Amino acid sequence: MSDTDALNLPKSSLPRIVIVGGGFGGVALAKKLSKKEVQVVLLDKNNYHTFQPLLYQVSTGGLEPDSIAYPIRKILQDYNNFFFRLAEVQSVAPESKTIITNIGELGYDYLVIAAGSTTNFFGNTAIEANGMAMKTIPQSLNLRSLILENFEQALLTDDLHERDALMNFVIVGGGPTGVELAGALAEIKKGILPKDYPDLDTRRAQINLVQSGDRILKGMSDNASKKAEEFLESLGVHIWKNTRVTSYDGKTADTKTELKFEAATLVWAAGVKGVPIGGLDAEEFLVRGNRLKVNEFNQILGQDAIFAVGDIACMQTEDTPHGHPMMAQPAIQQGRNLGDNLLRLVRKEPMQPFIYKDKGSMATVGRNKAVVDMKNYRFQGVFAWFVWMFVHLFFLIGFRNRVVVFVNWVYNYVRFDREARLIIRPYQRDYSLFKDQKTL
Amino acid sequence: MSDTDALNLPKSSLPRIVIVGGGFGGVALAKKLSKKEVQVVLLDKNNYHTFQPLLYQVSTGGLEPDSIAYPIRKILQDYNNFFFRLAEVQSVAPESKTIITNIGELGYDYLVIAAGSTTNFFGNTAIEANGMAMKTIPQSLNLRSLILENFEQALLTDDLHERDALMNFVIVGGGPTGVELAGALAEIKKGILPKDYPDLDTRRAQINLVQSGDRILKGMSDNASKKAEEFLESLGVHIWKNTRVTSYDGKTADTKTELKFEAATLVWAAGVKGVPIGGLDAEEFLVRGNRLKVNEFNQILGQDAIFAVGDIACMQTEDTPHGHPMMAQPAIQQGRNLGDNLLRLVRKEPMQPFIYKDKGSMATVGRNKAVVDMKNYRFQGVFAWFVWMFVHLFFLIGFRNRVVVFVNWVYNYVRFDREARLIIRPYQRDYSLFKDQKTL
Repeated sequence: MSDTDALNLPKSSLPRIVIVGGGFGGVALAKKLSKKEVQVVLLDKNNYHTFQPLLYQVSTGGLEPDSIAYPIRKILQDYNNFFFRLAEVQSVAPESKTIITNIGELGYDYLVIAAGSTTNFFGNTAIEANGMAMKTIPQSLNLRSLILENFEQALLTDDLHERDALMNFVIVGGGPTGVELAGALAEIKKGILPKDYPDLDTRRAQINLVQSGDRILKGMSDNASKKAEEFLESLGVHIWKNTRVTSYDGKTADTKTELKFEAATLVWAAGVKGVPIGGLDAEEFLVRGNRLKVNEFNQILGQDAIFAVGDIACMQTEDTPHGHPMMAQPAIQQGRNLGDNLLRLVRKEPMQPFIYKDKGSMATVGRNKAVVDMKNYRFQGVFAWFVWMFVHLFFLIGFRNRVVVFVNWVYNYVRFDREARLIIRPYQRDYSLFKDQKTL
Repeated sequence: MSDTDALNLPKSSLPRIVIVGGGFGGVALAKKLSKKEVQVVLLDKNNYHTFQPLLYQVSTGGLEPDSIAYPIRKILQDYNNFFFRLAEVQSVAPESKTIITNIGELGYDYLVIAAGSTTNFFGNTAIEANGMAMKTIPQSLNLRSLILENFEQALLTDDLHERDALMNFVIVGGGPTGVELAGALAEIKKGILPKDYPDLDTRRAQINLVQSGDRILKGMSDNASKKAEEFLESLGVHIWKNTRVTSYDGKTADTKTELKFEAATLVWAAGVKGVPIGGLDAEEFLVRGNRLKVNEFNQILGQDAIFAVGDIACMQTEDTPHGHPMMAQPAIQQGRNLGDNLLRLVRKEPMQPFIYKDKGSMATVGRNKAVVDMKNYRFQGVFAWFVWMFVHLFFLIGFRNRVVVFVNWVYNYVRFDREARLIIRPYQRDYSLFKDQKTL
């Protein structure tokens, strides 16, 4: 039809802003552009926004995946001049102001790359092939299935050594993700496994948290680290500091020292990196961790019309020589600031630099156990745990999601339970490595 | 270990009852055997019980899958002498009182086959290969993905004919499943599509309900059928009676007459059949629809120690010459009666015959629109809709599931919305049949 453009978008005299990615940064930006004199096209390879901080609860049966995902089209419903396309972006051609996607090409006046981050295996292909990641909902569901399948499998072997390996969990990375997953698994071991598997000695299940540095939660205060370690140890988690996992073949995890883990499950939560986009020369535009160098306006250096926000953007300032932390808050704040700046650009006004307001960070270990670092307050324990829950409910998108998550949390708390322990799509683990076993 | 049996089950002097299937029948039976002088082994290929009557709400984004599934191990937690194994049963060897599964062999004293039913394509391989079924949670999620993907795909074509085909839904089978799915799709078309796809003329989306007989809901009263038709038509569903779909190649559904449907989606809800188990000779034991012939004690004819309940059992009585309806109620009632009978057998007392109490049947079409047939009361409309909801909440297993489903229903009702419209695992539909389109 003549009145439409590439990807069947209506032609418009308004400047077109293309946003790649519907995560925290992309959505915060979109919100700012609602009902303004711009046409906005949001692209994402999923039709939903993922609330990544709660993925570990999906993996451990505490929440259903649908309550931490939110349809992007629903977010955009009330916005004017907004268009969504389910697409994977392949590359950008800055000279022609065009991006190339799997569904076709699309011109832009301004392009915002908010594609987020993915798991960084630092080139270790063995760990990538045999370990589990937990950055997306399908990955979290795979991990949920694997955890449950391991116990079903453990029931079938007479060999104690193999059974122990099936019930051994190695979590690499002592950041919030690793800490929260380890804590949740420890609570499952204590509260659920003995009831679910009366014919299996689940006391022998082990949760190992492996950290290359000398403390966990290294982005937080010493106090928080220390308290989180205490909490984890009180739950029975084994913490291995100054330990670096070097390889994993699906059965044995090797470390730099003599230490080895025989385990059917290794979760890699030891690093993230930007998601590369073709067309932007790595030498010129990328810094450590595949992130795009941006100036104080989130503008990619040397590119007037291309911006990046969130995990994928690296704004090197005096306070942040390696860029801002790859977390929700910087993404949201950058998205908002960029939204205002793009409108200023359209109006030919000068842009305002981004100033990060550090609202602090937090991690939860388990029931009544969390650590919170705020600018002027640091606290741990029950109150921190309530603050953690309140903040997460607050940032969750959608009223229904909040209510459902709240209902689940109340239920889980009162009943010491997690009912979403369902293997809906089995994870096709190769158990033949664990020989002498019947196959499941 | 010497104190365990096959599948690592503890040896016991108690008689062992093996139940195949954790559906309505298997679970109702298990409940009766709790804390009795028997060892019970429940086998299922999933680790969860599925509440099948609400699968259509998963497909249409009204409910999350996790809230209509319930972990079988959780159901059995409070029972004594109960063991669950995640296993697929391959065959039975009645002479040695053994069943063969994918994880090994298992002896039994009494065997109960409660394996349920699967979609019956009546040998039509084209429809089986290209159509969608909706009997399991993964199938329902595939359908949910496909429905959403179709609209994303429809956005990308300029060809009106192709776009219409992508937005055309053919539901074959006018039973409760077909009626409920058609109604839900019609409500989505009306309430959600125009907001989610402002750049697509979703008024052109079509929902076709095709029924081979001369009325829909033929298991219900004439009144119910008539009213359900009225309800569906008021929602804009096209009902095609006396129409038999003969083939579907993924694009065109042919019928016995000149009528054809060009549609990217065909849902086959036109029949179910028992799930065959090896080792029981078809000639001798099976009747129409792959069901096992049973006597009034749900005992397989000629087999003292093998029983069948639910969809897979066909008890031919004067009132039910073709067996009981393949629905939840007969399965639950048969499971309960058989539970009592097995305990009688163990105590060497005579068994009591099964007497079916028909509690009526019901179907919902949409918001405030349902039809209910009870023995002495028949009613349609708002009150029927409330009764339908209450009954479904009542039979759902698990307090958390009930609360979450209730919250979703209230939300969906108040907001005219269904938020679980998420493509978590894309359904890999081949859209190349719809030529001239960009691929998604």
